[in-house]
Amino acid sequence: MTKLKLIGQNAKKATLEVANLTIEKRNTVLVAMAQALKDNWQTINTANQADLAAATELSGSMRNRLTLDQATIEGIAESLAAVSDLKDPLAGPYENWQHPTGFKIVKKTVPLGVVAMVYEARPNVTVDAAALTLKSGNAVILRGGKEAIHSNQALAEVLRQVLVEQGLNPDIIQLIQDTSHDSVNELLHMRDYIDVLIPRGSAKFIDFVVANATVPVIETGAGNTHIFVDESAVQNQAIDVIVNAKTQKPAVCNAAEKLLVHEKIAAEFLPKIVQALTNAGVELRGDTATRAISPSVKEASAADWDTEYNDLIMAIKVVKDTDEAISWINEHTTHHSETILSEDADHVAQFMNMVDAAVVYQNVSSRFTDGFEFGFGAEIGISTQKLHARGPMGLPALTTIKYEVFGDGQTRH
Amino acid sequence: MTKLKLIGQNAKKATLEVANLTIEKRNTVLVAMAQALKDNWQTINTANQADLAAATELSGSMRNRLTLDQATIEGIAESLAAVSDLKDPLAGPYENWQHPTGFKIVKKTVPLGVVAMVYEARPNVTVDAAALTLKSGNAVILRGGKEAIHSNQALAEVLRQVLVEQGLNPDIIQLIQDTSHDSVNELLHMRDYIDVLIPRGSAKFIDFVVANATVPVIETGAGNTHIFVDESAVQNQAIDVIVNAKTQKPAVCNAAEKLLVHEKIAAEFLPKIVQALTNAGVELRGDTATRAISPSVKEASAADWDTEYNDLIMAIKVVKDTDEAISWINEHTTHHSETILSEDADHVAQFMNMVDAAVVYQNVSSRFTDGFEFGFGAEIGISTQKLHARGPMGLPALTTIKYEVFGDGQTRH
Repeated sequence: MTKLKLIGQNAKKATLEVANLTIEKRNTVLVAMAQALKDNWQTINTANQADLAAATELSGSMRNRLTLDQATIEGIAESLAAVSDLKDPLAGPYENWQHPTGFKIVKKTVPLGVVAMVYEARPNVTVDAAALTLKSGNAVILRGGKEAIHSNQALAEVLRQVLVEQGLNPDIIQLIQDTSHDSVNELLHMRDYIDVLIPRGSAKFIDFVVANATVPVIETGAGNTHIFVDESAVQNQAIDVIVNAKTQKPAVCNAAEKLLVHEKIAAEFLPKIVQALTNAGVELRGDTATRAISPSVKEASAADWDTEYNDLIMAIKVVKDTDEAISWINEHTTHHSETILSEDADHVAQFMNMVDAAVVYQNVSSRFTDGFEFGFGAEIGISTQKLHARGPMGLPALTTIKYEVFGDGQTRH
Repeated sequence: MTKLKLIGQNAKKATLEVANLTIEKRNTVLVAMAQALKDNWQTINTANQADLAAATELSGSMRNRLTLDQATIEGIAESLAAVSDLKDPLAGPYENWQHPTGFKIVKKTVPLGVVAMVYEARPNVTVDAAALTLKSGNAVILRGGKEAIHSNQALAEVLRQVLVEQGLNPDIIQLIQDTSHDSVNELLHMRDYIDVLIPRGSAKFIDFVVANATVPVIETGAGNTHIFVDESAVQNQAIDVIVNAKTQKPAVCNAAEKLLVHEKIAAEFLPKIVQALTNAGVELRGDTATRAISPSVKEASAADWDTEYNDLIMAIKVVKDTDEAISWINEHTTHHSETILSEDADHVAQFMNMVDAAVVYQNVSSRFTDGFEFGFGAEIGISTQKLHARGPMGLPALTTIKYEVFGDGQTRH
């Protein structure tokens, strides 16, 4: 048996224990874990220093996301403690009904079992994922990136120690130490042990996982998100929303990447929005019609329209009407978040109805696509697929159902 | 563009039309389709004769499932018409709430989009799948087995003709004419066009699909189902349930395949159940303990414990207690339907809680795992996975959600 299969087997064994913890016990453990992270911040920080020392090639923003100083660790601990306040995703009441022959069917909510998370640099995912899977009664297998391996080891060790102190099996939370590509590949095929695998990272990485996994996967996070400015848009409001969606946090999946402008307002609106985005430090690329009106905009290549920049870059295109905006978006969308800025009820209804995305906005910044903003209290990722979960995933996405049937000898004829 | 990609593209184009039909229109179309099948029974029967003439190698029961005489076609038409009476899976009311900044979030139920069904001999699946996907607002791509190709073509032609007569795009329902393995292989990778693929057929076929698909798949139907007879079981009742679960329709996935008997009652119970199953024509295979008590039982091989016979064969094993029964089942289950026959509330609770299957029964024949028996009015398959849908899948399994957000310029800070 390989090392990874042993981890899988240990996780499977731990599922029954964690699935049967009372909500009081699960919450007690979460609070104790938060305290332990605060108490051990120096150990974690020391491990993090080793990662930072090795990460000489990381860019500034990536380096920033990798850093665990005392304040960051306390923030992570507080997020973890907050999970204890969330509603128990396993609590009833459950639907139940009777078959004509008299047996009773109960549709229960149960944990998925073993959740595997594969993610890149950010060590806070280690704690977030452990907290949310524990709260929902699952065992978790964590496979973080090599850049954060020492930090992840220190964090996982603190969490596992709390499990032991609480009289629980530490294998409810396991971290894979092997950060080679081989470990991901093996994980993707461990159908006997993994009930769902959630990848988090670049679009390229998620595509690789989806193309290669035989375990069930929930796709997350790729966001080539568009904003369509209809002729009826309130233009000052549109400028605020566009600048916010593009620049408030450009590295994340719900940031806007593309702007489509109705041709009837293009001559009036484009110079204003180009000015506003340029002032905000955004590099602009556009189609011919855009550049005819705003010559400062660079020429967009064909590849631009399918690229998620995750950076202060935006591509602009002029479209004939709502129909063309919708077809264009459905051709290029990653099905994450799409926006119409419009006061025309018919155009809005058409856009809402026809655009194929998890979240469709009218006159709101797409930066709100987020489990916390949606009121779910937590987020394990943002699903861009249609099966099981779509959009921001809270605790219910980590559960499934089970039918329990109680009878007294019924047979079928 | 390949022929199959064109089918995919046509299906994608048809999704918006079918998603936006009123429930009245969807039901009108279903009723018209039922009538058209009855009116055209001779054309369908003639096509079916061609399949039957070519199917010289099919076994009696398979041949039977392939046959479409007038009565069978009328039965299929009536099932189709019955779908028009089912509740609209897209109907609200939808959950909705307000963000603190004032925008409104509506969680809508929407169709999946393009559903692909890949199935083996039974032509009735062509009509069932078309009816259920249409009712739930989806476009469907059907890929049946080569044994039924003429029957499937005739059935699909009748259904598509009704779509045309009703003023609709016939590509809401498309049948792939190419029954080669290549067509399945290509389908499994058409991520741009297929929102979910549901395979129906042998366990081997479903494993192949799961191992190779990059489109989202719902696993269905493999059923290595167990019955555990606890020491407290009412033995006469147990005999009825076991004989029913094994013999009432042995070729289907919810038929029982394995029997586990508590060692404390083995000496008393085994001779009775062996007699009853033998009388019902079941070939029995057993472990050493079983054969020591009932020598007429053949020796089971290691492979038996993981084999779904789909036939009048059953393997029997003596176990020490509920714990051993549960571990054994969790080791060998296909997560479909598992049964305990017991009057002991603690053992039942333990079994319900710990056995990892879609449906867990106390004192009921597993033959009831079925969308109609569960009161769903229809069934597109039985999911043995945990994501999206588990157990019998009714119309809601063919839907997903979409968040529609309505605001007046909200930005995130």
